[in-house]
Amino acid sequence: MDKGDKTRQAILRKVAVLFNEKGYAATSMQDVTAATGVQRGGVYNHFASKEALAVETFEYACSVLSKRLMQSLRRQKSAGGRLKAIASCFAEHYCQNPLFPCGCPVLNTAVEAKREMLPLRRKAQEAMGEFKDLILKTTVKGVKTGELTDSVDAEAVAAVFISTLEGAMLLSVLYDDPTYLDHAVNHLHRYVDSLAVNT
Amino acid sequence: MDKGDKTRQAILRKVAVLFNEKGYAATSMQDVTAATGVQRGGVYNHFASKEALAVETFEYACSVLSKRLMQSLRRQKSAGGRLKAIASCFAEHYCQNPLFPCGCPVLNTAVEAKREMLPLRRKAQEAMGEFKDLILKTTVKGVKTGELTDSVDAEAVAAVFISTLEGAMLLSVLYDDPTYLDHAVNHLHRYVDSLAVNT
Repeated sequence: MDKGDKTRQAILRKVAVLFNEKGYAATSMQDVTAATGVQRGGVYNHFASKEALAVETFEYACSVLSKRLMQSLRRQKSAGGRLKAIASCFAEHYCQNPLFPCGCPVLNTAVEAKREMLPLRRKAQEAMGEFKDLILKTTVKGVKTGELTDSVDAEAVAAVFISTLEGAMLLSVLYDDPTYLDHAVNHLHRYVDSLAVNT
Repeated sequence: MDKGDKTRQAILRKVAVLFNEKGYAATSMQDVTAATGVQRGGVYNHFASKEALAVETFEYACSVLSKRLMQSLRRQKSAGGRLKAIASCFAEHYCQNPLFPCGCPVLNTAVEAKREMLPLRRKAQEAMGEFKDLILKTTVKGVKTGELTDSVDAEAVAAVFISTLEGAMLLSVLYDDPTYLDHAVNHLHRYVDSLAVNT
């Protein structure tokens, strides 16, 4: 990585936290220069506009979270084990050494980017879609291998998983209390057990 | 209600939808005057500042939602029936004639109001706290009357309920698709059944 690439990465890392805390609309370019220590011109050398910076920052945040999630799934072979690891890993993002102390960047972006921030909205839809696909595919595979019961509705599993985790993240951040995520993880682990074929 | 009160109520009603869609930071006083048809001076006659308007608007939105919820609980006597009605009513806010098409004002405010909007953050914590109390008290009463099993952890029930509903609302708004809320309601109804003493 040359010096330019390093500066670019450093900007993305710091601004991802900043946008996630303050939101896009409330973050000024002055906030960006203060957080990164890079002059306005330097930031614009790397990113064409505040909107381009927002989109790339969001992609950066998602790639970091996705990498962590994939790492935590590596050792899990069964569908049940993978589903449980997805729930635990999501909670750990917040509880242990959080990269984003102000909660899930996908949730926060989904809330802020509505009719007037369409490129970011589409990015949030895509990111949530990838998370959904992971849960869908894991569940469908579990049914195929006979680990999960035939009656399992993979769409419902994905909806319940993401809803419970994102909602619990919201509560844990709102009250600065990880208990909500703990309850969510325990609930989802029991839910996964209820989907398994009784052996 | 005199003319002044009517204007005040009309401002609150329109601005509640506006803030919920655009967020507080991205909404200018020009947006407020355009949405309400009331001149800037007229708005400031009723509300001392944009922040005061934001806080009162949030309180107004919560009171409207709370009234709807209480109405839907009136006919429910059992703890299980009340819990199920809470889930169904929450989803109906979005699906049938939504007052706030851009999702739950408490969720949206919780996401936007962090370190720099503390009065709004406290309001969001209070509103979520009232929702939690309703679920807690309903559950505890259900255990006391012998309808729900002794082993039920009311704190866990409240956390799972709010997490699942708020997260599903987020997804339904993000994709403009009520299916996520449908899945959440079905899941929570089955969850409530699992808490009941088998008769």
